[in-house]
Amino acid sequence: MFTFELHTTCGNARAGVFHTPHGSIPTPIFAPVGTQATVKAVQPRELRELGASIILSNTYHLYMRPGDELIRDLGGLHKFMAWDGAILTDSGGFQVFSLGDFRKIDAEGVTFRSHLDGSTHRFTPEKSIQIQHNLGSDIMMCFDECPPPLNRDVVRAACDRTHAWARRCLDEHWRSGDPTKQALFGIVQGGIFPDLRAESVRTLRELDFPGYAVGGLAVGESKAQMLETLDQTMPLMPTDRPRYLMGVGSPEDLVNGVARGIDLFDCVLPTRVARNGAAMTRVGRINMRNLQYATEDAPVEEGCTCYACTHFSRAYVRHLVKANEILGHQLLTLHNLHLLLTLMREMRAAILDGTFTAYAAEFLANYRPTGKEANAPPVG
Amino acid sequence: MFTFELHTTCGNARAGVFHTPHGSIPTPIFAPVGTQATVKAVQPRELRELGASIILSNTYHLYMRPGDELIRDLGGLHKFMAWDGAILTDSGGFQVFSLGDFRKIDAEGVTFRSHLDGSTHRFTPEKSIQIQHNLGSDIMMCFDECPPPLNRDVVRAACDRTHAWARRCLDEHWRSGDPTKQALFGIVQGGIFPDLRAESVRTLRELDFPGYAVGGLAVGESKAQMLETLDQTMPLMPTDRPRYLMGVGSPEDLVNGVARGIDLFDCVLPTRVARNGAAMTRVGRINMRNLQYATEDAPVEEGCTCYACTHFSRAYVRHLVKANEILGHQLLTLHNLHLLLTLMREMRAAILDGTFTAYAAEFLANYRPTGKEANAPPVG
Repeated sequence: MFTFELHTTCGNARAGVFHTPHGSIPTPIFAPVGTQATVKAVQPRELRELGASIILSNTYHLYMRPGDELIRDLGGLHKFMAWDGAILTDSGGFQVFSLGDFRKIDAEGVTFRSHLDGSTHRFTPEKSIQIQHNLGSDIMMCFDECPPPLNRDVVRAACDRTHAWARRCLDEHWRSGDPTKQALFGIVQGGIFPDLRAESVRTLRELDFPGYAVGGLAVGESKAQMLETLDQTMPLMPTDRPRYLMGVGSPEDLVNGVARGIDLFDCVLPTRVARNGAAMTRVGRINMRNLQYATEDAPVEEGCTCYACTHFSRAYVRHLVKANEILGHQLLTLHNLHLLLTLMREMRAAILDGTFTAYAAEFLANYRPTGKEANAPPVG
Repeated sequence: MFTFELHTTCGNARAGVFHTPHGSIPTPIFAPVGTQATVKAVQPRELRELGASIILSNTYHLYMRPGDELIRDLGGLHKFMAWDGAILTDSGGFQVFSLGDFRKIDAEGVTFRSHLDGSTHRFTPEKSIQIQHNLGSDIMMCFDECPPPLNRDVVRAACDRTHAWARRCLDEHWRSGDPTKQALFGIVQGGIFPDLRAESVRTLRELDFPGYAVGGLAVGESKAQMLETLDQTMPLMPTDRPRYLMGVGSPEDLVNGVARGIDLFDCVLPTRVARNGAAMTRVGRINMRNLQYATEDAPVEEGCTCYACTHFSRAYVRHLVKANEILGHQLLTLHNLHLLLTLMREMRAAILDGTFTAYAAEFLANYRPTGKEANAPPVG
């Protein structure tokens, strides 16, 4: 269990398989996010149909509601949400650190107030691991501090805390968990500072985790800074363990991440933009509310083989979005997840074929990014 | 096309088949409602999986958004919403008459303001038929006036108008439509007054519609009054045409309606109560928010074979409802539609077997109705 087979590389891109108690995950792979024990607007049977092999769920949210002990008593998270593929849980750290005025950090842990009812709670590295034990995820994450990435002093302090807490997480997992049933991954911090990243990798490698995440990116730095950080950090990572880039999931970031040796991604982006009425495509994001789609009989994305694109027109999807119909959320979510999971499959095949470099170059040449890094307006 | 085969009767209950250009509909049958060209939270492939053979969609809503001419230009409503089963459209009458201060009735039609943007529109019998031609539904309904059912003078005036408009609808359909592709049903009005109902049936029978609806019920009268009206009216209806009870869809009403010779029902109830977090069951409606379900590993309804009940626990469904997750709407909608469509199949089988009377008696003995007619509190 939890062995990683690296099949081949193409440049820095890697194709492999990560074995878990809930199936073998072909890498590189994207994990759809099911924050509250459901990937929003998608049924588990549809996740299978989309080819998903791993999803992410959130420790903070499940601890709050319905409670990790309830989920344990009902047979664990896989049974609770009827998903028999692999599950990765985050540590809750990112959420509780995001609570701002509602949390207080000390050397031992974080005390915070619930976003639901204001009640007071406390997470420590040990508590985070205990919750993840109750959830029964295949991959658990260390309780870490994810700081804003640009302030060196803040980042250094967060690294020190993250490293100390990583040891405590590992100790707790060995003490009260079963490392043959659940794998604990370490999280590299260090912001945009190469020496801090290097030190973080070095420190965590000593703890010999079965997988390593790159945390603290896609949280405020520019895309160029993110890619530069990956360029500097990835060569230091062990080659025989899966590498996970947390919270990243735009099509161009997936391609750029795979090109730098990332094996695993997760992000709310495809499901969130779907509920905002936008479709991800191979040429950029499109807003389905736009008037130009009102009369278009073409599918959301030409050539796409997802359920939405093989059955419905842009005009229909736009109508659903404008009328605020749940089916609009469903269809766009299916499409966006289908695109990202298809991209991952295509990239894996290209790595195995030795054609990944050309694949990535062609994809990025055709793609118009959205948001502050984009120079071109979104398509549509 | 549009022939009705009556296979057998059991008491007043009837089992038959109604043939349409989009499939043969086994009767008695329930039509899920897809107001805005989508049965809320359900995909067309799931409607098929549930065994639905006909759905209802709303002329007023589709005229307003996205527009019936757009739907016509895109190939009609079946293609637009990717539903290749039968579709029944209402006339828009019920909606525009419900607009209260925003509508003005005259002998020729109704002038009203849009609920979306306040713009002024006018429906006449001819206009309603033209819109339904553009939508391309299999079964069209006459533009009628559905009055509050208890005031005799109001009901009498509405009957006269309904009958005059029924002739105009038929004329318009023969003038500009294709009666081999779309069937126009007449609507019997008359409130709770037996003589007015009898007169309405007599008048409409002279127009020789391929099917007849009982309108103006389930709109304010008591359940006892509704059933009494059916008892008096149904014996007067032609036996060789399908009979449609509009806007009725609680489990007990379906059983009581079939027992009185109704062949077709539609109602928003199963989909609406699902989105409110309630499940319909064979013993009554249950509110999934109730604390008692928080830890229950049992399915929403024991023995149910729907996707929700075969994969998820009450605890999980309650969690989804409490967390306001779309999947909660999806699962409860699938369950409620599965229950009603299963009840219809069971009733049809019991009629064919000659055991319907016992089936209905047993069902009603076990069922605890919800709402003002119920003496017992809802289960749970």
